[in-house]
Amino acid sequence: MNFLEERIVKDGGVKEGNVLKVDRFLNHQMDIELFNEMGKEFYKRFEGKKINKILTIEASGIGIACIVAQYFHVPVVFAKKAKSINIEGESYVADVESFTHKVKNQVIVSKKVLSPEDRVLIIDDFLANGCALLGLISIIQSAGASVEGIGIAIEKGFQPGGTVIRNLGYQLESLAIVESMDEKTGEIVFREQ
Amino acid sequence: MNFLEERIVKDGGVKEGNVLKVDRFLNHQMDIELFNEMGKEFYKRFEGKKINKILTIEASGIGIACIVAQYFHVPVVFAKKAKSINIEGESYVADVESFTHKVKNQVIVSKKVLSPEDRVLIIDDFLANGCALLGLISIIQSAGASVEGIGIAIEKGFQPGGTVIRNLGYQLESLAIVESMDEKTGEIVFREQ
Repeated sequence: MNFLEERIVKDGGVKEGNVLKVDRFLNHQMDIELFNEMGKEFYKRFEGKKINKILTIEASGIGIACIVAQYFHVPVVFAKKAKSINIEGESYVADVESFTHKVKNQVIVSKKVLSPEDRVLIIDDFLANGCALLGLISIIQSAGASVEGIGIAIEKGFQPGGTVIRNLGYQLESLAIVESMDEKTGEIVFREQ
Repeated sequence: MNFLEERIVKDGGVKEGNVLKVDRFLNHQMDIELFNEMGKEFYKRFEGKKINKILTIEASGIGIACIVAQYFHVPVVFAKKAKSINIEGESYVADVESFTHKVKNQVIVSKKVLSPEDRVLIIDDFLANGCALLGLISIIQSAGASVEGIGIAIEKGFQPGGTVIRNLGYQLESLAIVESMDEKTGEIVFREQ
C-alpha cells in the first residue's frame, strides 16, 4: 500500500451506498502534509509535460490543487459549479449531467484565465462517474488549450469514470483506486498498480 | 502599498455595484506565490497564538487557507455552505443571513473535526458584511474551541463587517482594506495601516 492507501485504511470509513468517508483528512479537514506527499507524487508522474496551469473544480479539489501547484510552480484555476444560469460570453461553460442524480449542472471558467497556450493538469479529489471531469476537459478544449494529464486522489474503480477517461486516451493517474468496499466489515480493497 | 495592494491595483478591476474583480489572481485563478507571501505575513501577525487549526469556508477561502497552513504546520477545515437542510446531530450548524441578499444559508462543520482543544485561526479571501465570518465564529464557539484570530486578504472598509468583528474584540488582520473604489476611473483607495 502507498501512503494514501494506508491513510484511507487508517482514517477513512465506509458508509451505506458505497460512500467512502475521508472527511478527517481529505475533503473537509485537510491534512496539508499529506497533500504535499501527493504533490511530490503527481510531479513525478507528470514531470516533463511542461504543465503551466492546474485546473480543478470547487470545492474539495481546491486545497489539493493549490498544494500540488507548488511542485509545478504554476497557478491554479478552479471551475465554478452553478445550476444552469445565463452566462454572458465571458466564460467557457460545460453542461454536466450527473449519471446518478439526473441533475443538470454547469461548470464555468472565465475566458480571462484559460487560453490556447495553456498546458493543463486537471486535479481533483475523487473520480467516480467522471461527469465533472468530462466537463473540465470540454472547457479546456473550448479554450483551445491542451489536457496534459489528470491527477486524482481517490478513484472508485467500480464506477465507470476511470475507464471512460482512459479510453479517451488521457494520462489519468489515481493515487488510490478502490476496487471494492464493504460497509459491514469496513474492508477496502485497492487495485494493484 | 504592500504586496497585495500593489497586485490589486495592477491586476484587479472595479465593476458596477462596488464589485472588486480579483479573479485573475485571488478567487478564480489563484497565484500560489502570492498566497505564500500572504502566508508569511499572517504567520508574522499571529505567531505566538499557538494556533493548531485553520478554519475557512468554501469555496474561495480554501486555496489561501491551505497555503497559509504550511506556515503554521496545522490542518485546515473548510465549512460547507448549504441552503437550510436537515442535518443530523453530527455537525455544528450556524444560520447565516445575508444582509444584502436576504437569503438564509447554513454553514456546516462536522463535529469530528473541531473540538474544545482547538485554537483556531479563521482565514478567508473577502470581508464585506461579515455574515459568513459571524457564522464561523458561532461554530467555533459551539465546539468549545477558541478563535485566536482572523486573517482576511481583502476587507471592504466601506462595509460594516470589519467594524462589527473588531468591536467583538477579535484580532482581525486584513492585508488590504479598500476604503473606496470608483468604477468610472478604476481608482482604488486603501486604508493606511
